[in-house]
This record gives sequence, structure tokens and C-alpha cells, in this order.
Amino acid sequence: MSCNAAELLPLLGGTANASAAASYLCDRFTTVTYAVDNTYLLFSAYLVFAMQLGFAMLCAGSVRAKNTMNIMLTNVLDAAAGSLSYYLFGFALAFGAPSNGFVGRHFFGLRHIPESSDSGTFDYSFFLYQWSFAIAAAGITSGSIAERTQFVAYLIYSTFLTGFVYPIVSHWFWSVDGWASATNVNNLLFGSGVIDFAGSGVVHMVGGVAGLWGAFIEGPRIGRFDRSGRSVVLRGHSASLVVLGTFLLWFGWYGFNPGSFLTILKPYGSPGGYYGQWSGVGRTAVTTTLAGSTAALTTLFSKRLLAGHWNVIDVCNGLLGGFAAITSGCSVVEPWAAIVCGFVAAWVLIGLNKLAEKVKYDDPLEAAQLHAGCGAWGLLFTGLFASKRYIGEIYGLDRPYGLFMGGGGRLLAAQVIQILVVFGWVSVTMAPLFLILKKLKLLRISSEDETAGMDMTRHGGFAYAYHDEDDFSQRPSIMMRRVEPASNTPSPHPYNGGTHV
Amino acid sequence: MSCNAAELLPLLGGTANASAAASYLCDRFTTVTYAVDNTYLLFSAYLVFAMQLGFAMLCAGSVRAKNTMNIMLTNVLDAAAGSLSYYLFGFALAFGAPSNGFVGRHFFGLRHIPESSDSGTFDYSFFLYQWSFAIAAAGITSGSIAERTQFVAYLIYSTFLTGFVYPIVSHWFWSVDGWASATNVNNLLFGSGVIDFAGSGVVHMVGGVAGLWGAFIEGPRIGRFDRSGRSVVLRGHSASLVVLGTFLLWFGWYGFNPGSFLTILKPYGSPGGYYGQWSGVGRTAVTTTLAGSTAALTTLFSKRLLAGHWNVIDVCNGLLGGFAAITSGCSVVEPWAAIVCGFVAAWVLIGLNKLAEKVKYDDPLEAAQLHAGCGAWGLLFTGLFASKRYIGEIYGLDRPYGLFMGGGGRLLAAQVIQILVVFGWVSVTMAPLFLILKKLKLLRISSEDETAGMDMTRHGGFAYAYHDEDDFSQRPSIMMRRVEPASNTPSPHPYNGGTHV
Amino acid sequence: MSCNAAELLPLLGGTANASAAASYLCDRFTTVTYAVDNTYLLFSAYLVFAMQLGFAMLCAGSVRAKNTMNIMLTNVLDAAAGSLSYYLFGFALAFGAPSNGFVGRHFFGLRHIPESSDSGTFDYSFFLYQWSFAIAAAGITSGSIAERTQFVAYLIYSTFLTGFVYPIVSHWFWSVDGWASATNVNNLLFGSGVIDFAGSGVVHMVGGVAGLWGAFIEGPRIGRFDRSGRSVVLRGHSASLVVLGTFLLWFGWYGFNPGSFLTILKPYGSPGGYYGQWSGVGRTAVTTTLAGSTAALTTLFSKRLLAGHWNVIDVCNGLLGGFAAITSGCSVVEPWAAIVCGFVAAWVLIGLNKLAEKVKYDDPLEAAQLHAGCGAWGLLFTGLFASKRYIGEIYGLDRPYGLFMGGGGRLLAAQVIQILVVFGWVSVTMAPLFLILKKLKLLRISSEDETAGMDMTRHGGFAYAYHDEDDFSQRPSIMMRRVEPASNTPSPHPYNGGTHV
Repeated sequence: MSCNAAELLPLLGGTANASAAASYLCDRFTTVTYAVDNTYLLFSAYLVFAMQLGFAMLCAGSVRAKNTMNIMLTNVLDAAAGSLSYYLFGFALAFGAPSNGFVGRHFFGLRHIPESSDSGTFDYSFFLYQWSFAIAAAGITSGSIAERTQFVAYLIYSTFLTGFVYPIVSHWFWSVDGWASATNVNNLLFGSGVIDFAGSGVVHMVGGVAGLWGAFIEGPRIGRFDRSGRSVVLRGHSASLVVLGTFLLWFGWYGFNPGSFLTILKPYGSPGGYYGQWSGVGRTAVTTTLAGSTAALTTLFSKRLLAGHWNVIDVCNGLLGGFAAITSGCSVVEPWAAIVCGFVAAWVLIGLNKLAEKVKYDDPLEAAQLHAGCGAWGLLFTGLFASKRYIGEIYGLDRPYGLFMGGGGRLLAAQVIQILVVFGWVSVTMAPLFLILKKLKLLRISSEDETAGMDMTRHGGFAYAYHDEDDFSQRPSIMMRRVEPASNTPSPHPYNGGTHV
Repeated sequence: MSCNAAELLPLLGGTANASAAASYLCDRFTTVTYAVDNTYLLFSAYLVFAMQLGFAMLCAGSVRAKNTMNIMLTNVLDAAAGSLSYYLFGFALAFGAPSNGFVGRHFFGLRHIPESSDSGTFDYSFFLYQWSFAIAAAGITSGSIAERTQFVAYLIYSTFLTGFVYPIVSHWFWSVDGWASATNVNNLLFGSGVIDFAGSGVVHMVGGVAGLWGAFIEGPRIGRFDRSGRSVVLRGHSASLVVLGTFLLWFGWYGFNPGSFLTILKPYGSPGGYYGQWSGVGRTAVTTTLAGSTAALTTLFSKRLLAGHWNVIDVCNGLLGGFAAITSGCSVVEPWAAIVCGFVAAWVLIGLNKLAEKVKYDDPLEAAQLHAGCGAWGLLFTGLFASKRYIGEIYGLDRPYGLFMGGGGRLLAAQVIQILVVFGWVSVTMAPLFLILKKLKLLRISSEDETAGMDMTRHGGFAYAYHDEDDFSQRPSIMMRRVEPASNTPSPHPYNGGTHV
Repeated sequence: MSCNAAELLPLLGGTANASAAASYLCDRFTTVTYAVDNTYLLFSAYLVFAMQLGFAMLCAGSVRAKNTMNIMLTNVLDAAAGSLSYYLFGFALAFGAPSNGFVGRHFFGLRHIPESSDSGTFDYSFFLYQWSFAIAAAGITSGSIAERTQFVAYLIYSTFLTGFVYPIVSHWFWSVDGWASATNVNNLLFGSGVIDFAGSGVVHMVGGVAGLWGAFIEGPRIGRFDRSGRSVVLRGHSASLVVLGTFLLWFGWYGFNPGSFLTILKPYGSPGGYYGQWSGVGRTAVTTTLAGSTAALTTLFSKRLLAGHWNVIDVCNGLLGGFAAITSGCSVVEPWAAIVCGFVAAWVLIGLNKLAEKVKYDDPLEAAQLHAGCGAWGLLFTGLFASKRYIGEIYGLDRPYGLFMGGGGRLLAAQVIQILVVFGWVSVTMAPLFLILKKLKLLRISSEDETAGMDMTRHGGFAYAYHDEDDFSQRPSIMMRRVEPASNTPSPHPYNGGTHV
């Protein structure tokens, strides 16, 4: 919120004292504004961080028990390794303003942060918020290549994605200097710029397309398609963890989408009215809720018709597909449009899953279908349904808006460009990386390890031990031992094929 | 917080410029107030939403493993279906002001939201906050009828409850036009109106009484009472999920109770003091904490005496009973009174559980006992212990207050009316619905399905697979297979009695 | 943020009206400041409360399945019993100002709260925030003595720790009157006072040292060291719960460290700039993130070298060690220094774990090593790396600062004093208590109970029942029953050695 001393000065009388009075008062309003906006952004960042826990639980529940330790470790490391790489260079490449349209070049290691300049205010809260987004992208990819990827390969691609591929994309579309950014007021693509408010493209498509290439190059898990080529569902080991993870992601999405306003203390129009950025924030939370909910319900009924049962796992994936889709346009569409967005997103996911089965593409979390597929739909949706009024309030007056809302095709054209560019950029960077890793035999684990499970062979043991070794050590039935792979005594163990210690 | 230009004007000198200066400054304070209050309400709504996750985990852990997918699906759908029905009409029926005392009639599909009028300010944040309450009510009911209800019945009653029964009740007691609302200043019931600050009656009794009728009409689960009529505990499958859910509910209750102030930037008395609505919010968090904690400790020791062991599940239920009870009076009682509230709530729950056993009432989550029983106690408690000062600060001066605090019996009478009316309204709407569903054979599942578990027969499979099909497929011991019901290969399976795919 | 009417008065013209105008405006700024700061502190308290859930899940996953109910009950009771004892006297002993340097003496039962005085503003939000810290300390200790401690002993030491030992320590270092507090401006220890911003010493060392004595006096769990004295890992039963708990602790730490500023609406320098306490809050979140992340990565690679596998449990513990260490200096060091802090913390934990094995010290959660060890390192780290500028902004100008930053040794000396004093105080209070409990045979459970597990003998049954009694009751294979200890039918049961009901 602005309080301009030059404006206030004549109102107070125009003397020297009045000038000081105006400064005195406006300075206090400015301080209030910084405090409130930073509070808002910090707590939003914490919510987005909670999504990392959501991803971890969703991934854990969706894989077989024998790979639980492996996938959870990748989720912890997304956050931990991402902290260092995003601190050292990722943030600088993304938002290091002023810069050219392609890559940022300031703020390495948070030098000169906090700073306020023409390019914006860069305080620690902004870094934290962007960091929480960066680690989400790598989390998406880890789902696609779960249950068969060497841990070393994971460390390499994850650092590359969080530290380089993702920051570049976020620079293009979100930095004030980005060549396709809707905030690059001097040079708007098609006079519009891309509207990817919270990152259907920047986050979800990037993570999803990277996963697509990884899963495609690795090939399906053993047993995913039987000898006659029929699809065999390899069920995850815990529906409770899947639901836990899904609800945590829903919870965190209220940081992801509404938080992307970055500030909340801003009236729309002159100060004093009840309508302002807080209303936009609230509306964004509503559109997010409605899109996810509609996608969940659509999935529920369509799966009941298609598969004959009510499936909570499918409903969870549908819900997340709706969220991934609305993430681009959440702030600029009407609530009723969000229902359309979610409805279509559910069918996009169902269709892509059918297609994936047909072409024998195996993605344990449906991550490419969900994040890249529904994310791409979300970008198109924004080009179709974005409202003139809301774009004006958020991005400035007289911009192109949604085709179906009478705003012409320029915004839609920009959105199509984003889909193509994100797909292209992630493909030319990540596909070669996965191919090189494959060449170096660093990508996929051995079939013995895959059958036994990575936890036993690489990660120190099975994730669960519901019955104690103590008890079983007193009853030396070999058969019982087989039921209990969690034993970590150095006994001969049927699963123990690797370097298990 | 108000900043009134007409008040400020003479202070600044009374000229034309001074008038503009006063407006300029006050408008900025107004904007700050909207931003801060909306931030507060939005994050409170997110916390309340986290309770839905808490319910899901609590319910999941409290049922047997074979019904986990079923109950979690109902919890996801409470939120998803509730989003659409509350958006389309629920919110309008509840808060569509101006209206008569019985039902609201504006804001269908969020038309004309945001709006500020004499009836209050209705921004998206208010809708979100109320939505998060509406979905909680249906979640309570699903606990009562768990493990034996057809999924179609669930969809029907849940939509009816969230979209119609609950919104009407919230209109009566919370809308500014409600016939028994404490904010209906033109026409206060007994000169007092009902004080159900965060919904011991509006949310907990509504959900609990609906569950009572559902569970009563369905009858107990198979095996819950043995042939000689003795009670057999059907233990839930995971205490960890129960504790996880309970703590998440505790966490979310800090949005539920303190958040019900709706705003926080409001001084009590003239501006400038350290005491204001933020103190009331903090005190409400303290009373909530103390009531739940006392109920938990009371349950711990009484159960130790009654049952001979220290039981974390009982302690969790006691804790939640304390929370459900304090929810009505949380903002208007002293912290020491909250301890009384929690102590009695624990005994109410213990007593009602004894009674339920005696009359062979089976409620897998103790939801009717806990939410309806402790909720009703909470309404009485408010009528007994509400403080004159706090009611004055929140509802306005010179109101009736708690009987034991010297405030006469009028508030208590209003509270009794609420108990009777909520019980009556929910009974005349929900009991017939459950009876009709029963008549149409849509209510209870078959005894075969109940024995096998709904997950296998209706929801696509068992929720857990701690040991992989891969491993067991190589060891074709039938006995082992029996230990592993999670197998989803199309083998002959002892549990597979239904349409399992 | 201050708005001083005496300052504003001459600026507005100096007449009587101007005086009223200045008050009018400044009072409103004051109200805004209280509302924003209380909102910030309340939501921070809720985040810290979420750590209690994190502890519960971390502890549950880290013990064997047969003691899950036991350890979760202790975690629920930390919060519940802590609420009452901290409300009745703990808070008064800690912060009851004005007081002497050793113990507080006001505010018993929250009398006279809220209050604003020379000693500070004590609103309910401050009580809640401090309560959420107090219950964390007891949670740490329960990890050290897990799986072998009588529940009665737990109730006694927990109340003593939360209600007396911990509040006294927090008075010394955090109260404005504390003899070693950095805010005791009249009497600074070594002209500096101790800087333990969020409690590496006050919380983590207190909990850890208490646990050290408890675990030492009780001795190792049965089977933890075999007959030849070799260490045998007694693995926890669920890695998923460990990761869930770790992420929740990470999430909550954003309330613990940044929240310890207590306020956020405060400019550094004169109002109006973009740099203020919100920047300090954000930087604190950044240093916290970097220290934990670095410790996690350091642990990952060093454990890979030392043990031959990538272990998510170790990485989680490393991460938490980094957090415990940075908690002291989080607000006063540069982000790069946080990386140093985390790197060393990981090695401190690895070293102390080696040492613990060597001396046959058994701590199921590594709690003493992690919280006391890394906590002590964190206090030293602050004495070495604290920045002049940040200490000036937070504690006031011209203070001693970090030795390695050129600030001399006085701050470091104060930090060393804190380590010694905390170790001493907790030792002379807690060690005798544990010894007395041992003498009275109230400390350790019987070896039969320990082998069978406390859940079956003391807490009403096994925590999990993944396969239903119903199913197994139809197949009376004794062997199968052995695989299913969750049965609670009154059958002869191999584990059932105690008072199981």
C-alpha cells in the first residue's frame, strides 16, 4: 500500500512542518505494509514447504513397501540439496535482476539481499518462497522414476533440475526481465506475456516433463506389463499415506496459489474500500478449492463407471490434477470457471493414463500425466477463461484476456508458446542427461535389486518392522523370517542380495 | 479498527484540505484493517481445513484395516462434495443477508461476493472459513456410521447435511438475521441470544446427532456385541493414525475457535492500548488448550482406575471431547473455567460410552457421544460460566451472562433452547432420510461385504501391502497368501467376495 | 513500531487540536502494531505446537512396534500435562516480572495477564508461545528413555521438568530479569549476556541432558548390546513415521526460530525503509533451513562412506541435529555461517553416537547426542560467528559479538558459562530424581514387560491390527495367531504376560 508524502503534504497545509508530518505518517504506513506483506509471504512459504512432506507421504504410499526408504530419502534430499543449490546459484539465475530476458545474474549466495530496487523488493521471505517452489519441481520428477532409479542418478538430475533447468524457466516467465513474463512491461510477448500465476507450467510441467523423459528412458518397472503385454497394477503399499500426502498437498496449495500474490496489503482502486488484493487472495483460494474438488468428484464417478468401484487413490490423483491445472489461472478466473477447469482436468488425466497404458509408459505416481498433462491444460484454460477485470487488477489495465471471455487470442497464443517452450527446454536439457546417465550405467538399478527392493540392498533395510526381531529370534522358523524382511541381524536372508549392512 | 474522517477532520484544523487529509489517512488505516483481518481469517481457514486431514487419519486409524479405503474416501469427499454444494447454495442458505430469521437467500454461487453492507462484510475469506466448518460437520457423522454403510447412502446424506441441514442451523445461530443469534441485535432471544461462539452446537451437535440417528437406524456392526449380548471391542487398526489425527485436530482447533472472531485488528476500548481483540483471540486459544488438556488427563486417570491400563486411544477421545465442549464458550470464559469444562466433558464422554454399551449402540468413533454429548455440555457450560466482561467486549454491553457468574438464567435458557432445537431439527431431517435409505435398501451393506470388508468388495482392494506380490509369487504357499490379503493378482483369494478388480 | 504523539505534535502545528490529532493517529498505529505482532506470534505458536505432533511421530516410528502406544501416550501427555502445569506455575516461574535474577514470581494461573509494563507486554499469545516451547523440552527427554520406563516415572519426571526445571532455566536466559539474559540491560554477564535466541541451550540442552541422565541411570534396553558387548541396532518399526515426524519438526521449526523474535512490525532504523524485523525473521528462516540442510547432506555422504548405504533415518537425525545447533544463533549469523554450523553439527552427532556405542549408552532416539550435543555446539557456534550488525539490530548497539568475526571472547565466554550452568542445573535436579525413582522401583519396567512390549502389558494392546480378528477367528491356526499379536480376544496369547485387558 502506498502512502505518498508528496500527496499528503498539500493536504496538511504545505508548510515545512507539514512536510515532515507527511513523511512521518507515510513512513509508518510503509513499515506496516512491509511487515504485513512479509508476514503473509513467510507463512505462505511455510505452507508450500509443507507440500514437500505431502509429496513424501504421497510417494511413499504409492510405491511398494520395499522401496519406501528410497523414495522418502529422495524427498528429504529434494529439500536439503535444493536449499544449498538454490541459495548458491538457483535463486540468482531465476531472479537476479536487472538482467537480460534469459537468465538472471545477481544475488548468488544471497549477496545484496535484502534489496529494494526498480526490479522489485527482494527480501529473505521472497527467497524462501521461491525456494519452496524450486524443491517442489524435483519432487514431481522423483515420482515418475520411482522404484528403479539408482540413487546416484537421482542426486545428479535433482541438483541439475533444481539448480539450473527450473530457475531458467522461472526467470523467463516470472522475473520482471523474463522474455515471456507478464510483468515485463517494456516488452510483452504478443502484447500480453504469459500468465502462469503460480506455475502450472513453470513448476508442474517442468517437473512432469522431466519425469516423462526419465521414465521413458528407463522403461517400465519389472512386472508392470506381463509377457502378453497386459498392464498389471503394481499397487502402492499404503493408501493411508496416499491420503495423508494428498490432504497435505491440498493444505499446502493454499500457500502455493494464493501466496503467489506475494503481497496482500494493496487496495484495488483507491484505499479505503473493502475490496483489494486480500479479496483476490481469497478468490484464488476459492478457485483452487473448486477446481480440485470438481476434478475429484468427476474422477470418482467416471472411475465408478469405468472400473466398477469407488477408488480413493484415483480420487486423490484426480484432485491433484485439478489443482495442477488451476495453478496457472487461479487468480484471474471466476469461481464458476474453476469448475470447468477441474472437470476437464479429470478427463485429461484419465485419458493420458489410458494412453500411457497403451504405449507401455510406466510412471508409478502418474506424475507426468498429472503434472505435465493437467499443467498444460491449465495453461490453455487460462488463455480461454481469464477475466478482463481480474487481469486488470493484478497485471494492469488493457491487457489481452481469455478467448472465451471475449479477449481475443493473444493471451492464448502466449500460453501455447509457453507449453511448447517448456516442453522443448526441459526435453533438450533433461533427456540428454538421462541418456548419458544410462550410457554410464548410472541410471537404472539391476533387476536383482529391483526385485529385492532398493531398501534392502541400498538403504540399510526394510522400512517397517511391525513384529520384533526379539520375538522371532526366539522362534527360529525360517518361514516366519520370510514374513519378516525387516530383520537386520546378519542372518542369511532371502532378500539380502546387496550391500545391506 | 475504525478511523473516522469526521472525527479526525476537526483535529486537523477543519479546512477543506484537512478534510482531504483526514480521508487520506483514514482510508489507509481502513485498508490496513481489511488486509490484516483477511490475512488472519484466511490462515485460520487453512488451519480448520487441516482438521479434515485430522478427521481422515483419526477415522482411518479407528476402523479395521479392511475398511480403511472406504472411510478415507468419505473424508476426501466431505471436502470435495462440500466445496461444490456449499458454493452453490449452502453458503447462501446460511449467510445470505438480508434475510428472515430462518433461512438466507442471497449469494447463491457466490453472486455479489465480495460485498460490504449493513449485515457485514462478505469476502471470499469468510466463505472459505465457513466452508471449512461445513465440511467438518459431515466428517463427524461419517465416524458414527463407519464400517457398515453403503457408499451411495453416504453420498446422499453427506450432500443433504452439508448443503441443507447444517447451513440452516448456522443461519439460526450465527447469521446476523438468525432468530436465535447473539448478533441479531434487534430481536435477541430472551434478550440474550444463543452464545455458540465456534459451534459446540452448530457444528458438533449437528454432526453428532446426525450420526446418532444413522448408527441407531443401521444397528451395530457384526460382532460388536456377542451372542450373549456382551460388548466386544472391535479395535481400530492403527493407533499411530489415531494419534496423528488427534494432534492434527488439536492443531486445526486453533483455527476453529480463535479464528471464529473473524477479525483481529480491533481495540477493546479506545485505540492505543495493549488490550484488544488479539487478547481475546489469545485467551480463546488458551481456554481451548486448557479444556482439552484437562479432559485428556481426567480420562487418563479415570480409565486407569476403571480399566486398569493407560490407554492413548481413550486419552485422545477425551481430549477431543474437551475441545468439542469448550468450542461454544471458548471466547467468553476465564481460563480457570475452561478447566472445569474439560473435567466435566471427560466424565460426560465416559458416562455416555457406558450408556451406549448398555443400550447396544455402536458408534465406531464414539462420534455421537463425543460431539453431540460433549457439545451439549459445552452449551450448558457457557450458560453457567460466561463472563460479563468478555461478553460485553465481544457481543456488546449489558447482556445476560453466566448463571454461576451472577448473570441470571436468561443466557442459560437460550442455551437450553439451542440444545433442544438442534436435536429436534437434525432429528426431523436426518432420521427420516436414513429410514428412507433403509427402506430402499440403500443404507447398509450386506453381511458378506461387512465380513470381508468394504475395501475388497467396493473400493478396489485392501489399503495396505507391506509385503510385495513379487516376492510371494515366487513362493506359492497358500498359507502365506492368506497372510497377504493385499495381493491384487487375479488369484483365488479368500477375501475376494465381491467385485474386486 | 512506535508512533510518538509528542514527536508528531509539533509537526502538525503545535495547537491543542494538533495534539489530539497526533494522539488519534498514533493510537491507531499502536493498535495496528499490537494486532500484527500478536497475529504473528499466535501463528508461530501454532507452528511450534505442530512440533509436538512431529515428536510423537518421530518417536513412534523410532521405537519397536510393541512400544508404540506407550511412547505416543507420553507425547500426548507432554502437551496435556504441560498445559496445566505451565498455566498454574511454570510460566510464572519463568517470566513473572519484575523478579530477581533466579526465579519469576508473578502471573501464577495467568493472574494479571494480559499486562503491559516496563518488563514487557505479556499477552495470552506470549504465554501460548512459551508453553509450546516448554512441552517440547519434555518431549526430547521421553525419546532418550523410551521402551523401558514405567509410565508413572514418566508422569513424575515430565511434570517436574516442564513445571520447574525448564522454567527456571528459561528465566535465567530469556527473562528480562534473568542473571545471564542478553535482555537484562542493567546487568549483562561479561557485558554481553548469553545469546540463546530460540533455545539450543534453554530447550534442547535441557531436554537432552535430562534424557542423558535418565538413559544412563536406567541402562540400555535388553538386547541393545549382545553378550560379547557388541552393539545391536534395535530398529524402529516405521521409517515412514520417522520421515513424517522429521518433516513436521522442520515445518514447526519455522515457528520456533523465526517466531522467537516475538514481534515483526519493527523497522530497523527509522520507519519507511524496506529493511526491518521482517527481514531478520526471514533471514532466521533462511539460516535455519541452510543449517539443517547442510547437516542432512553431510550425514548422507559420511554415512555412505562409513556404513556403505544411503540411510534416510540417519539423514533425518542429521537434519534435526543441524536445526538444534542453529537454534541458538539463528537470528544473528550470516547465511553462509549457518552452513558451517550444520556441517559441524553433523559430525558432532556422528562422533557422539560412536562414543555412545563405545560406552554402551543406549538412547533410542539419539536424543541426548542430538539435542544436548548439537545444542551445546550451537551455543559455541554463536560465540564464534555472531555478527556485529545483527546483534546490534536485535539486542542493541555496541555489544560483544562472535570471536571469529572480530568481536572478542566475551560473548563466547558467556556461551560457555551457559553450557556449564545448564548441564549443572539439569544434572543436580534430574539425576537425583531418576535415582530416587530407581530406588523406589518406579523407574524401569520388568524384563518380562520389556520383552513383551509395554503396549500389551500396560496400554491395552498392540498398536496395529492390519488383519482382522474376524478373519483369523475363522482359521484357528496357532502359528497365524503368533503373526497377529493385535488380537484382543481373550485367547491364550504368547505376548500376553501382563495386565492386558
